[in-house]
Amino acid sequence: MKKISVNTSQKYDIFIEKGLLSNCAEIIKSQTKSKKFAIITDDIVDSLYSEILINSLTHEGFTAVKYVFKNGESSKSIENLNNIYSFLAKENITRSDCIIALGGGVVGDITGFAAATFLRGLDYIQIPTTLLAQIDSSVGGKTAINLTVGKNLVGSFKQPILVICDSNVLSTLSEEILADGMAEAIKYGMIRSSSLFDLINNHNIDTVSNVLDDIIYECISIKSDVVSADEFDKGERMILNFGHTLGHAVESYYNYEKYSHGSAVAIGMALITKQAVASSLCEKIYLEKLIECIEKYRLPVKCSASLNELVPLCYNDKKRESDKINIILCSKIGDCEIKQLTIENFNLFMEV
Amino acid sequence: MKKISVNTSQKYDIFIEKGLLSNCAEIIKSQTKSKKFAIITDDIVDSLYSEILINSLTHEGFTAVKYVFKNGESSKSIENLNNIYSFLAKENITRSDCIIALGGGVVGDITGFAAATFLRGLDYIQIPTTLLAQIDSSVGGKTAINLTVGKNLVGSFKQPILVICDSNVLSTLSEEILADGMAEAIKYGMIRSSSLFDLINNHNIDTVSNVLDDIIYECISIKSDVVSADEFDKGERMILNFGHTLGHAVESYYNYEKYSHGSAVAIGMALITKQAVASSLCEKIYLEKLIECIEKYRLPVKCSASLNELVPLCYNDKKRESDKINIILCSKIGDCEIKQLTIENFNLFMEV
Repeated sequence: MKKISVNTSQKYDIFIEKGLLSNCAEIIKSQTKSKKFAIITDDIVDSLYSEILINSLTHEGFTAVKYVFKNGESSKSIENLNNIYSFLAKENITRSDCIIALGGGVVGDITGFAAATFLRGLDYIQIPTTLLAQIDSSVGGKTAINLTVGKNLVGSFKQPILVICDSNVLSTLSEEILADGMAEAIKYGMIRSSSLFDLINNHNIDTVSNVLDDIIYECISIKSDVVSADEFDKGERMILNFGHTLGHAVESYYNYEKYSHGSAVAIGMALITKQAVASSLCEKIYLEKLIECIEKYRLPVKCSASLNELVPLCYNDKKRESDKINIILCSKIGDCEIKQLTIENFNLFMEV
Repeated sequence: MKKISVNTSQKYDIFIEKGLLSNCAEIIKSQTKSKKFAIITDDIVDSLYSEILINSLTHEGFTAVKYVFKNGESSKSIENLNNIYSFLAKENITRSDCIIALGGGVVGDITGFAAATFLRGLDYIQIPTTLLAQIDSSVGGKTAINLTVGKNLVGSFKQPILVICDSNVLSTLSEEILADGMAEAIKYGMIRSSSLFDLINNHNIDTVSNVLDDIIYECISIKSDVVSADEFDKGERMILNFGHTLGHAVESYYNYEKYSHGSAVAIGMALITKQAVASSLCEKIYLEKLIECIEKYRLPVKCSASLNELVPLCYNDKKRESDKINIILCSKIGDCEIKQLTIENFNLFMEV
């Protein structure tokens, strides 16, 4: 079993092992005094994995209650949050109990936010069941819900007390959902590790499952390092946003319908790197390698919307500071920097 | 001008002076780099004080936008929170801007929660306009909204960057709203300061306005000390809950309609102290002085609901830990202790 320790204000461990879900309560028991667990999950994950989790919990003598909502981004809403709160209140969950997020990014984000705010905060555990959630949203303590006017506009920083990654559960993912996570994995390679990038680029969507454990471990290690150094996203952590400012614009332009988060980030990475090449801030060969790698995972590198249409949508970015915008540029594979630009200079850079 | 510094994780100052509102932007300028302010207030406070605040802000060259909702506890809802979020998004509020809560406890609580969670948190300033808000809810960083199943069940710990108390604004309060705050002032005297209790008990609802500045200063000093020592409500801070466990039960029993928070706390303090006397944990003379003082402010000391009806409602208390409940008992005026009881022993203590 691999273990990564995250050094945020609340320290916690991430355990990675195939098949871990079926005896996860042993680890849970070692990390918390709670005896009662409220599992929050979606209907698809529920049908696949709730029973395994509940069996493990009850085998250790714990009590478990469960709330299931409809799979999909539309559940990351304030209405569903209100339903989760009502469930927790109805089940008499107290501050000494613990919440478990069992699912992908939507489940993790909204459950983390509920755990951060119900009774002004109680402990929670992440059991991510998609690649994207395992390498990204389950690590770092960013929790969120969407508003009708924009994604992730409301949230908290709330660290879990424990993260359990069982790569066996990824075997039930569709190719699309797996690729969604691979876009973020490529991002980690681009910003921090050319060896991780090469590992990913030496495989493709059909062969990657053989090396997934290594990829998960490397990605989480990078994220853990970055988050430990900058928990509250004031500086270096922004490098994790590579491809995301334009990616969010792509998602928003198509009303979060046409492109998954990973697909949009893939487009965002390609577009911003293309502009970096145009400004002589990156050599063309790295853009070509990036595009080659993205395409190996059947992810898109462009979309029908023009930069003129996408750039204005970038101004809704949470990381924007008044009249400035922060963008992340990779000068080569494995190395990046944060550039703060005025709106005017960002427009120039984007050639709009 | 009086100043109290609060030593929480985010340190901040509370300024107290008559007439401070009309030039508060000078102080604001000294405490933040923000140039744009989103004022959240209710319709009653808006008609009285928004203009004074906005004039002060614009005089210093700041930009101000305003969101006004209906006065009253029913506005402390998830629906109103969603409206506030939409307003902040529509006004393009960024993390470098600042939110101002102008109003009583409802405004302060929901605005603080919005500031804690919009874009995962931005700075906010409290300008409390009721006595209760000045001495209680504006200090300590507890923010909250109500659920249909219970009050303050959702919230965060979020310290303001600045609190501005202008006791002149209290002159427009009704006798009832003033008394609502006096119940909390009596609480501070009971748990920590017999001299504060005597000051309050030497006056009554008709004469207290002459000594309000001293009372406000003493109450905030006590709360600031307690909160600085236990920001996240894990121990000593619970003493601030004196009268509140039963008080919340009274509010809940009457659907938050018949009794204000202060009236319910007054009943709660009298009821719990009566039980303390019955268990020989407090001398009868202190109960009599407490009741005498409460009645000087035309606040209730009992209600029609029996203990049999109220006690089960105490189990919804946020501070409850699984099968235990924490209660605060005053052995004399100015001195209290936290007692953790099992549900069984709490029932015995309450004679139900």
